[in-house]
Amino acid sequence: MTARSSLPFDPIAEARRQWEAHGWHRAAPGMALVTSVIRVQQLFLARIDAVLRPFDLSFARFELLALLSFSRRGALPLSKAGERLQVHPASITNVVNRLEADGLVRRTPHERDRRTTLVELLPAGRDVLAGAMAALNEEVFAHPGVSLPEARAIVDLLREIRLGAGDFEEGGSRLP
Amino acid sequence: MTARSSLPFDPIAEARRQWEAHGWHRAAPGMALVTSVIRVQQLFLARIDAVLRPFDLSFARFELLALLSFSRRGALPLSKAGERLQVHPASITNVVNRLEADGLVRRTPHERDRRTTLVELLPAGRDVLAGAMAALNEEVFAHPGVSLPEARAIVDLLREIRLGAGDFEEGGSRLP
Repeated sequence: MTARSSLPFDPIAEARRQWEAHGWHRAAPGMALVTSVIRVQQLFLARIDAVLRPFDLSFARFELLALLSFSRRGALPLSKAGERLQVHPASITNVVNRLEADGLVRRTPHERDRRTTLVELLPAGRDVLAGAMAALNEEVFAHPGVSLPEARAIVDLLREIRLGAGDFEEGGSRLP
Repeated sequence: MTARSSLPFDPIAEARRQWEAHGWHRAAPGMALVTSVIRVQQLFLARIDAVLRPFDLSFARFELLALLSFSRRGALPLSKAGERLQVHPASITNVVNRLEADGLVRRTPHERDRRTTLVELLPAGRDVLAGAMAALNEEVFAHPGVSLPEARAIVDLLREIRLGAGDFEEGGSRLP
């Protein structure tokens, strides 16, 4: 839900000015940070939605297809997929329901543990993902609106916020 | 819609590793950037929603109340408020409808231009805003999860993305 008309000034800088003018000095930088993140998320999601529309995918559905494609068997337990994508069980269920209705994934019982439900990527899902991946990589991810070093800097800074919020544990990083 | 269980590794670093392993080198940093912004937005919004719940406000409704309180007369044309908050006309209409139903704002015709609808902050809206503002400033904005210099660095970097997306025009900034 982003409006496209350009303002003659930076609305977040203006909001910070208001915060300072009201004496909320300790809160002003955080307000600007939170508001900036929310706005840039809207801008990115609008671009992503536009690119994914021809593939009839939301970003959440794209993310699940990608995650399954990265797994060795093209299948993951439903609960594990939800944890990895950091979404509520209800959300992952909705995402899987929609992908299953579209014939892109299917639920199967785990061969050794029948209580575990696996989500399996189907060939049609792999095809749709390939097209969506190429389009997203080319049209959004390769052109995020900042330079490569700047993108890395933002990722590193935001990582601290994710870490502080308990998203993951530092010691267990799989990267050096 | 954020899940609260901590992963033993950074899922975005892991996704980047997958992108690299598939040869999508040009897209990997942008993917990490976009995914980081989306995740941190979820984390911030979950904290904001929790703080605003006792005030029966969404962040969008809080933002409109704050914007009106900053205006000289406590009232703005509906269209101008939508532009300033960078939301679609339909969204700002929904926000105003809800605030009006709760007795926090009212629509009035502009005294000189009857075709223009003003949104006016009512005393009850000012009261609710004061409480919500104090709570958000103290519980979220003053503790954004990074240091002050880091918060400023992120704001500056994200500003470039907003500028590049046409959110506002550089020359017209009201800040030095």
